[in-house]
Amino acid sequence: MPAARTAPFGHGGRTVTTWLTDAWYVAGWDAEVDTQPLSRTICGVPMMFYRKLDRSVVAMRDACPHRLLPLSIGLREGDGIRCKYHGLLLGPDGVAQEMPIRTDPVNRRICAETFVTHERHRMVWVWIGDKAKADPALIPNLWPCSKPGWTFDGDYYHVECDYRLMIDNLMDLTHETHVHAGSIGQPEIMEAPIETRVEGEDVVVSRWMPGIEAPPFWRDALKLPGLVDRWQICRFVLPAAVMIDVGVAPVGAGATLEDHDQGARGIVVDFMTPETETSHHYFWGMARKFDVDDPGFTARFKRGQGGVFAEDKVILEAQQAAIRANPDLKLSAYRIDEGGVRARQMIARAIKARKAEVSAH
Amino acid sequence: MPAARTAPFGHGGRTVTTWLTDAWYVAGWDAEVDTQPLSRTICGVPMMFYRKLDRSVVAMRDACPHRLLPLSIGLREGDGIRCKYHGLLLGPDGVAQEMPIRTDPVNRRICAETFVTHERHRMVWVWIGDKAKADPALIPNLWPCSKPGWTFDGDYYHVECDYRLMIDNLMDLTHETHVHAGSIGQPEIMEAPIETRVEGEDVVVSRWMPGIEAPPFWRDALKLPGLVDRWQICRFVLPAAVMIDVGVAPVGAGATLEDHDQGARGIVVDFMTPETETSHHYFWGMARKFDVDDPGFTARFKRGQGGVFAEDKVILEAQQAAIRANPDLKLSAYRIDEGGVRARQMIARAIKARKAEVSAH
Amino acid sequence: MPAARTAPFGHGGRTVTTWLTDAWYVAGWDAEVDTQPLSRTICGVPMMFYRKLDRSVVAMRDACPHRLLPLSIGLREGDGIRCKYHGLLLGPDGVAQEMPIRTDPVNRRICAETFVTHERHRMVWVWIGDKAKADPALIPNLWPCSKPGWTFDGDYYHVECDYRLMIDNLMDLTHETHVHAGSIGQPEIMEAPIETRVEGEDVVVSRWMPGIEAPPFWRDALKLPGLVDRWQICRFVLPAAVMIDVGVAPVGAGATLEDHDQGARGIVVDFMTPETETSHHYFWGMARKFDVDDPGFTARFKRGQGGVFAEDKVILEAQQAAIRANPDLKLSAYRIDEGGVRARQMIARAIKARKAEVSAH
Repeated sequence: MPAARTAPFGHGGRTVTTWLTDAWYVAGWDAEVDTQPLSRTICGVPMMFYRKLDRSVVAMRDACPHRLLPLSIGLREGDGIRCKYHGLLLGPDGVAQEMPIRTDPVNRRICAETFVTHERHRMVWVWIGDKAKADPALIPNLWPCSKPGWTFDGDYYHVECDYRLMIDNLMDLTHETHVHAGSIGQPEIMEAPIETRVEGEDVVVSRWMPGIEAPPFWRDALKLPGLVDRWQICRFVLPAAVMIDVGVAPVGAGATLEDHDQGARGIVVDFMTPETETSHHYFWGMARKFDVDDPGFTARFKRGQGGVFAEDKVILEAQQAAIRANPDLKLSAYRIDEGGVRARQMIARAIKARKAEVSAH
Repeated sequence: MPAARTAPFGHGGRTVTTWLTDAWYVAGWDAEVDTQPLSRTICGVPMMFYRKLDRSVVAMRDACPHRLLPLSIGLREGDGIRCKYHGLLLGPDGVAQEMPIRTDPVNRRICAETFVTHERHRMVWVWIGDKAKADPALIPNLWPCSKPGWTFDGDYYHVECDYRLMIDNLMDLTHETHVHAGSIGQPEIMEAPIETRVEGEDVVVSRWMPGIEAPPFWRDALKLPGLVDRWQICRFVLPAAVMIDVGVAPVGAGATLEDHDQGARGIVVDFMTPETETSHHYFWGMARKFDVDDPGFTARFKRGQGGVFAEDKVILEAQQAAIRANPDLKLSAYRIDEGGVRARQMIARAIKARKAEVSAH
Repeated sequence: MPAARTAPFGHGGRTVTTWLTDAWYVAGWDAEVDTQPLSRTICGVPMMFYRKLDRSVVAMRDACPHRLLPLSIGLREGDGIRCKYHGLLLGPDGVAQEMPIRTDPVNRRICAETFVTHERHRMVWVWIGDKAKADPALIPNLWPCSKPGWTFDGDYYHVECDYRLMIDNLMDLTHETHVHAGSIGQPEIMEAPIETRVEGEDVVVSRWMPGIEAPPFWRDALKLPGLVDRWQICRFVLPAAVMIDVGVAPVGAGATLEDHDQGARGIVVDFMTPETETSHHYFWGMARKFDVDDPGFTARFKRGQGGVFAEDKVILEAQQAAIRANPDLKLSAYRIDEGGVRARQMIARAIKARKAEVSAH
């Protein structure tokens, strides 16, 4: 077996300092990973993922240890993978099982780097960093994805921007009015006060909109007339997740910012996995405890949310291009950006802490 | 208001030494700039241009001071622009008028860089350099574009080559024979002597072709039979214009190189605005004092000239690619290139003089 | 005439150390080079090739000495070439014959760099290096291409990978099983022993498969029933050729690895000419002494081989991309790679020897 990876995860051999290592990232939705290899570059490293006969997930460097051909274009054989070029067969542990010439003695020092994975919250997670520290307990607590009585589903998009620009976007509740003017935007969002606070390593931005008209989406979900109290609570979770607790409850039902299971409640769950310094994999879904048995809801919502997402993608990729075209300008932060600023600080602080930890050894 | 720009105009943060600063460049034809923003990178700087209600022109860095999203995809509001991302509203002076949250107090130190513009000769000019020196009197004297009794119109092309390669092209009257063999080329052009001289900061290349047959274009314009005297006078004007005085007069009408308003006369006016070091915006038009009232002439001429221009574009972009592919080779200059060589010297001398001026302060 | 080229052949002005200089490379098939210029970058240098009236080949830097426009888009005139931009006329020796203004005295120091070429083996060869050393006797001995009684034909492909990856591919006989599973692959190839040896500057990999069933291709060629002896002998020849002697003979006919003209025999001839460090021109053909008078054979074979080649192209370009995406990984060499390893050593040794030679002067 190969030694633990000592070189830092990076891009093109350079160390990248914009993402945290020794952390779990989402490699894909559970349904994206199947018997045929899925190729995906995670934190600068080309990887491929597939399921064994027992459905457990294998993650391997997407390069044959022999001549570097992507293993993802190879042929699955048993629980292993056979390279398409010379037929080197690797087991699910990445170790050679058969040489290009079948009768040659197997050199078991030949192996592809493997990565630790774990399935939770309907997602396949991959550990980026020192394998010895890969503890599933460190997987971000995205509890709504797994809560009994709730349902959870979502989608995947590739976005050509720094994953932190997406975090900025999600931690700011005001852009909806302008970017999504034609879809989910609502003027009240601009008027209600925002509160930003840090809870341990999380950053929480919340807004309480009491006694307002429910927008159509939430009216449908609530199935009751009358004014509602509405909430939006964004929670950033290291290394790169944002959960947005959203919903409405009838006025007087007793819902508060802290406790609001009285009405219609959903939690949008977003995970941003860096691909390169200026691109990322975006996984989003919605967990809900209303219309749980409506099979059409998720499909309609994914289609609808796809349109909203397309609006964000245009903006975020234009922003990344503008950052490149205006190298003398810097991003500014206003009051509304406090959530994103604190999330970035949390990332930077964690990166620094990991670095100090590694130096101390 | 922001201080005068101190960083040099450049590309990707580097100083570019191939174009003159503290100078006016054409940003667009007057008709190209309207109420909706026009995005155009000028001398390495992304800018956007729009007209206010009073039709005067606003030029602003095409990046929101908040999160750098191109302002050109924002929404026009009154005389200002509202960013599409978070809705920061900037006035036509670039200064913040409304924060993303409307009720927040406005921080008037927030502003987008603006640029000084001026309309003249049917074009919108933008000052590239120290704003304090932006004097409309310094706009190049392209007099035929504005002369009473004359008419002027033209078009815009984007060309993937150093703007100086286009100047070389325009200051040389011989390439027509080869590049434009099927259109405007004429063997006499190769036979008549060329004279190159410097007039102040201008470079003038002239050719007098006495007693020749008029080519079809000029025969139509003159509307007279018989031999003609023909002239071609190219004038380079800093920072990046070339005017080509062309026409024919009946033999014996008294036309000379210095004074030739006797026959059919037109002046092709070209302005090259650098975009990057290897691309530029090409604005060309023709001013004429014949067929002034023929509305079809300009349309026919633009269509015809478009074909001629397409021939030049192929050549110039192939030349730029060849410069890249042959890094060990240098451009040579022969006798026919004297106009281009002197024009480049004029640019280099002006750049040096500006630099000395700045150092002296 | 210009002095011998002193700058090393390279890419973008840098010296490239992956290919041998002072060597002959294939510029094109004889039929590819005709009266109209063929543009092709060889070892980092843009060149163009055409035939004179006497059908001999001219090779010239594909850049006009005047303004660098590719000469290949110029007009052929007599045995020379006239630049499409300003009409500079160059003779087949690259020297100016007529200036842009025809009446100007010709400056015969103006010239485009020319290259020494030689036709042999149905290919046009170009000498890359010091012209004084360009001896046709140094052209690689690809004897089957020119042998009386044999016929030879082939094709050209552009491949986006280091030419040495193609050499690795050709010097290894095992990849056929996996890459070409659906076409020419055969399990016996994996089972027969390989022998690798060095013969002077050549590297030879051979395999003898006695008493086997002939695969369909060879059954058709042999036109006899019964078991056969089959051979595959790959020979690497400096600077970048591989000849693969393949065929079958009836068991008992006396064929051996050394002498095997008894049955159906063909020799696949491959030449890899570097374009850049990560792309090359691939010329392949087959010389044969069976079905020599069957005009359909070559066409059918080219079409069939095209399919096989397409399989290799996918693999090789994916390998080159993987090398770029995994900068921390290195190619490994197993027993099957010995042919490629030794061929690369031969190249490296020859490069080192040439360098020592040049330093000694």
